[in-house]
Amino acid sequence: MKNIVTIGGGTGSYTVLSGLKHLPDVSLSALVSMADDGGSTGVLRDELGVLPPGDVRQCLVALSEHSDTVRKLMNYRFSEGTLKGHSFGNIFLAALEKVTEDFIKGVEIASEILKVKGVVIPITSNKADLSILLSDGKLIEGENEINHSDIQNIGIKDIFYKNNVELNKNAEEAISKADYIILGPGNYYCSVIPNLIVKGFKKAILKSKARIIFPINLTNKSGHTKNWKVSNYVNDAEKYLGRPVDIILVNNEEPSPTQLEQYKTQEGEGVLVEDDFKDSRVIRDALLSNAFFAYSKADKIANSRSFIRHDSEKLANCIQKIINN
Amino acid sequence: MKNIVTIGGGTGSYTVLSGLKHLPDVSLSALVSMADDGGSTGVLRDELGVLPPGDVRQCLVALSEHSDTVRKLMNYRFSEGTLKGHSFGNIFLAALEKVTEDFIKGVEIASEILKVKGVVIPITSNKADLSILLSDGKLIEGENEINHSDIQNIGIKDIFYKNNVELNKNAEEAISKADYIILGPGNYYCSVIPNLIVKGFKKAILKSKARIIFPINLTNKSGHTKNWKVSNYVNDAEKYLGRPVDIILVNNEEPSPTQLEQYKTQEGEGVLVEDDFKDSRVIRDALLSNAFFAYSKADKIANSRSFIRHDSEKLANCIQKIINN
Repeated sequence: MKNIVTIGGGTGSYTVLSGLKHLPDVSLSALVSMADDGGSTGVLRDELGVLPPGDVRQCLVALSEHSDTVRKLMNYRFSEGTLKGHSFGNIFLAALEKVTEDFIKGVEIASEILKVKGVVIPITSNKADLSILLSDGKLIEGENEINHSDIQNIGIKDIFYKNNVELNKNAEEAISKADYIILGPGNYYCSVIPNLIVKGFKKAILKSKARIIFPINLTNKSGHTKNWKVSNYVNDAEKYLGRPVDIILVNNEEPSPTQLEQYKTQEGEGVLVEDDFKDSRVIRDALLSNAFFAYSKADKIANSRSFIRHDSEKLANCIQKIINN
Repeated sequence: MKNIVTIGGGTGSYTVLSGLKHLPDVSLSALVSMADDGGSTGVLRDELGVLPPGDVRQCLVALSEHSDTVRKLMNYRFSEGTLKGHSFGNIFLAALEKVTEDFIKGVEIASEILKVKGVVIPITSNKADLSILLSDGKLIEGENEINHSDIQNIGIKDIFYKNNVELNKNAEEAISKADYIILGPGNYYCSVIPNLIVKGFKKAILKSKARIIFPINLTNKSGHTKNWKVSNYVNDAEKYLGRPVDIILVNNEEPSPTQLEQYKTQEGEGVLVEDDFKDSRVIRDALLSNAFFAYSKADKIANSRSFIRHDSEKLANCIQKIINN
């Protein structure tokens, strides 16, 4: 039995976990960013004072062994009335936090109800307000604000939490027991890095004997990582980790002309991550999904979600080969 | 194994089912009114076009063998933000109806998730808009409107559904297999009678060999059944049933001075049901709950809920004695 820890946010972790769930002899722990403050999650956070449910929900659904209907229920988004735009699963987690008065406990109960294979662990139980200080002194506050800002042109001086945000003990334990840690994929500054800057994370990673697998994002994000190549991701992530990654997964499959066109319309030029890395740590494989990702009109942040994604099964098979080696 | 069918709405059915759940060798079917259109249920019904979830939710929670936390979750009422006033369980059932596109199917899935002992069956799967025509020709439309109207002073000419509301097939089957049918307790015109006027109900009851047990309400409702005695309930209900009830359960325990005072403040005089019935069908027993029922401020219709109620355990024990006879 191998202990695998994933680190990320919503959609990216959903993708990797949906595949890993089917591997034999693995024990999965999904560590999830708590920085999200946009969309349905942002409204619940503001109005109810709960921790952000959206990313946790996606990981729970990925690992749920309940029926398709129940998994669909968790992702169902209301399209009318005062509930419009809310994902049912977000409301579910918010209500559980209210009832248990403890988000972590609420996630445990949700896991039981949803028959989750593995564990989903919020990276912190503290309120996490992400901030970015740009090189010109401008401060951008909140994950959603950062997500929609150009932080690349001027450059990032610091990415941090305004308040004290500590690594959850369960997350620390999962890292210490991990055989493999999978970093991302996902929105780099909004879903991946927010985990690495939590107080205590770097120390935990340095103590862990786990091999770090880094599936490089397929696409760059305009205003954040435009024109980045594989080497940029690796070098940047290693700064935050304080140690080298062990395995770099690079997709070598071309997106379809339709995917490319759609993505170009949405994000502009320089968004496909270019493979420039000559390094023995790199594994190249066909990892691209051919699925078309449609979003509900009720999804307020649909326009910031990626249309070019990893394929869960291909990614999981690639990871399995690494583990079996 | 005895087949027991309960017929009612939310709070009353919750009370009787919470007790019956613990009886050995019984198979329970809860038939639930679909007329509710007030409070959180009313908002969801209006905004999302779903069937009313509130009464079904209470029956599901009563029969749920899941943890206390999950049962608390289902009854949790949001007290802030745009979700304010909504019970989580109502949102849960509304989302399930949206996902399955079938309320009855949604209730089945909810039952599975909540580990429900027995079955909860909406009396109809049609949209049920309750109306009352008064003797002076005035029409009162909607269960919530009826609940807050004086329908007693002028008198009821007819209580009916504006549209075609047919008995659900599963409900029909439960009635035909029943050994005992328990009618109420509950809000007489808003939770009990709405079941009896569904098209096909009377025919099903007349065909059934079940013995009908009628636990008489403890209190009258001002503007609806003020000054009613046990005989009024029995005679009136039998009109709708088209046959006599078999056993009449009458409480012989006095409410506490505090309960009485509180109820008098809320509802006025003539609200305690007086026992005037000399009949071999009557069983008298101590059936009163001593619990204090507090309501959340977020519950928009808390002021119409009863403060003097049956005790679940006493009621169930009394019913068990009847079954064992």
